[in-house]
Amino acid sequence: MNVRLLRARAYLSRVAEPPAPALAELVAEVGPVEAAEWVHAGRVGEQVAGETGVRRAVHREDADLAAAAAAGARLLVPEHDEWPADAFEAFDAAGVAELAPPLALWVRGSGVLRTLSGRAVAVVGARAATSYGLHVAGELGAGLADRGYTVVSGAAIGVDGAAHRGALAVDGPTTAVLACGVERPYPASHQLLLERIAAGGLVVSEYPPGSVPARHRFLVRNRIIAGLAGGTVVVEAALRSGAQRTASDAASLGRPVMAVPGAVTSGLSAGCHRLVRDGALLVTRTEEVLEAVAPMGVHLAEPLEAGAARVTDGLDAAAARVHDALPARVARDSRWLALESGVPIGAVRSALVALERRGLVEHRDGRWRRCPAAQAASTRAAGA
Amino acid sequence: MNVRLLRARAYLSRVAEPPAPALAELVAEVGPVEAAEWVHAGRVGEQVAGETGVRRAVHREDADLAAAAAAGARLLVPEHDEWPADAFEAFDAAGVAELAPPLALWVRGSGVLRTLSGRAVAVVGARAATSYGLHVAGELGAGLADRGYTVVSGAAIGVDGAAHRGALAVDGPTTAVLACGVERPYPASHQLLLERIAAGGLVVSEYPPGSVPARHRFLVRNRIIAGLAGGTVVVEAALRSGAQRTASDAASLGRPVMAVPGAVTSGLSAGCHRLVRDGALLVTRTEEVLEAVAPMGVHLAEPLEAGAARVTDGLDAAAARVHDALPARVARDSRWLALESGVPIGAVRSALVALERRGLVEHRDGRWRRCPAAQAASTRAAGA
Repeated sequence: MNVRLLRARAYLSRVAEPPAPALAELVAEVGPVEAAEWVHAGRVGEQVAGETGVRRAVHREDADLAAAAAAGARLLVPEHDEWPADAFEAFDAAGVAELAPPLALWVRGSGVLRTLSGRAVAVVGARAATSYGLHVAGELGAGLADRGYTVVSGAAIGVDGAAHRGALAVDGPTTAVLACGVERPYPASHQLLLERIAAGGLVVSEYPPGSVPARHRFLVRNRIIAGLAGGTVVVEAALRSGAQRTASDAASLGRPVMAVPGAVTSGLSAGCHRLVRDGALLVTRTEEVLEAVAPMGVHLAEPLEAGAARVTDGLDAAAARVHDALPARVARDSRWLALESGVPIGAVRSALVALERRGLVEHRDGRWRRCPAAQAASTRAAGA
Repeated sequence: MNVRLLRARAYLSRVAEPPAPALAELVAEVGPVEAAEWVHAGRVGEQVAGETGVRRAVHREDADLAAAAAAGARLLVPEHDEWPADAFEAFDAAGVAELAPPLALWVRGSGVLRTLSGRAVAVVGARAATSYGLHVAGELGAGLADRGYTVVSGAAIGVDGAAHRGALAVDGPTTAVLACGVERPYPASHQLLLERIAAGGLVVSEYPPGSVPARHRFLVRNRIIAGLAGGTVVVEAALRSGAQRTASDAASLGRPVMAVPGAVTSGLSAGCHRLVRDGALLVTRTEEVLEAVAPMGVHLAEPLEAGAARVTDGLDAAAARVHDALPARVARDSRWLALESGVPIGAVRSALVALERRGLVEHRDGRWRRCPAAQAASTRAAGA
């Protein structure tokens, strides 16, 4: 990698607070080296000046690259083969200022970002998740990772952490996108989790080493989570939440937005329900997520089993009606059955033959009754 | 009411097991009196003969009318003013044999069916409901009845019973549609409930007095529930359930189908989630149900409160970023704030003025710090 280019991107990464749409556009036009020189000299238009004016004299690119190296991290730039160009193509296409693409990404870990984001799903949600939300996030994380999909999330307490842990539990790939420097153990209680994520996957951030997690950065960071994934699943979210922002970014990027339902009495499912009412796909298990993000026809979710089969399954309507009409313990003749069921007498007789062949009814002294064993099975499977 | 006509409908009500599409068509063509005579004489086509052949010699119309009267019930026929013609119009339009309209309805109670079904919502679901399902059904029943909507259901144990009880708890209107004679206390444990429903509303059935609740009748009965309501809400349902049938009947009738979400770990919410994935509207509260069933623009659900307001609500983006950049307890000057937030120094100064005016920051010795009280409020409201 060209060192001037890397230093230019490192400088630009610190000079503007993301998202910086005007600067991103300038870089796309003239390249990072020239853009960095112009910004440094203040020879830029009003919009780029607004994004870079305050920090343009701050030259910490060498210090930042050294700090990253010291923390086992590196700067990834669009000129790298490893850059997930496909993931960020949609940022330009979205035409939304808030969705300006990142100028560079600081990454820590053994993973290759382009590979990780090639088959990836974002699983995000509330910090104050319930045990239900944690359970579902863990199951989805494990299920997706088990099928070779990278679980992308924000490493926060709650749903994010459970999703990462689910992926790690099956030795699957996972990527954490932070709102601060990648060397920071944030949140502090997730220090070990972040190490484990880095060991097999990547910890990623737009913010140079040393950056602190200011609140607005969490929201800005969410577009990177949405961008690195083929779809976003919200597991639990209050009506006003960062996860909703990730979902809205995913929608702007043209990626599927999914939400896990929960009790309507839980405020932490209210955001998910709102998303579904606004058009997000309701998902209840891994297969349904994959069906939404995978190419057409792949990973089609098998319909769930519809519970215990009934003894009358596969019978025609008349036979089922005759079977229904027969009382549990009393024997009846075919004429009685015809009257009770409303099925013509000829059809009743054929129905009884079919039912007898199945072992559902038995015949004695001109009357029919239900077979006790079949009746027990039928009762167990009953109920509308 | 013409007695011959009433007796003809009573005869037809017993002669064919519903749904009887061919007989319904014959009655629509030649009227009930002539149709009854033809059926009695066997002078009918093959299809009508198939529906009526077995019971055509059974003349219990007088006995049935007497039994109904003895039980405080009466026969309601399409020729009555009280007949809910609007409700059943869709049955003919649906063009589905299973959705043949009822030939008559046996009703017990003080209500007027046409009035009750004019503003009505069906609330149905599993017998083996969870406490969650019972709670939600009760809340919806009460909420709908409180707004003057009739709660239509099947009087079954579980969701149905909870929905009826919810309506009764607010002295609201409710209608139970049975799969057996209206004089039967079925299920037995709902005897008192059925009395209370009849006291202010109606207990309704297609089946003449004495009819027993055979299993297929529950499914056939569900079309009457769907038909008497402007929309159907499924509260809890297994993947294979009678409630799904009610929902599918409602859809065939062009009425909104709604489903209440629940935990994805609950098999009793699986049917609801399937419905939503297949296009049903996810609903979480009464207002959302009314929005779906009421005429356009009426009962628009107010958006839920999005939780506690934040102290930075309404600030422009720059001011919010400056506020975020200011540490919790340390005072900083405006230049530091500009560097940290990336906001130009001039904009930082205006932002600080705006923040000071709001009481969010205070100024001392050339430095700014957060006001302790505002900070506490801000911390409480924090979290993505």
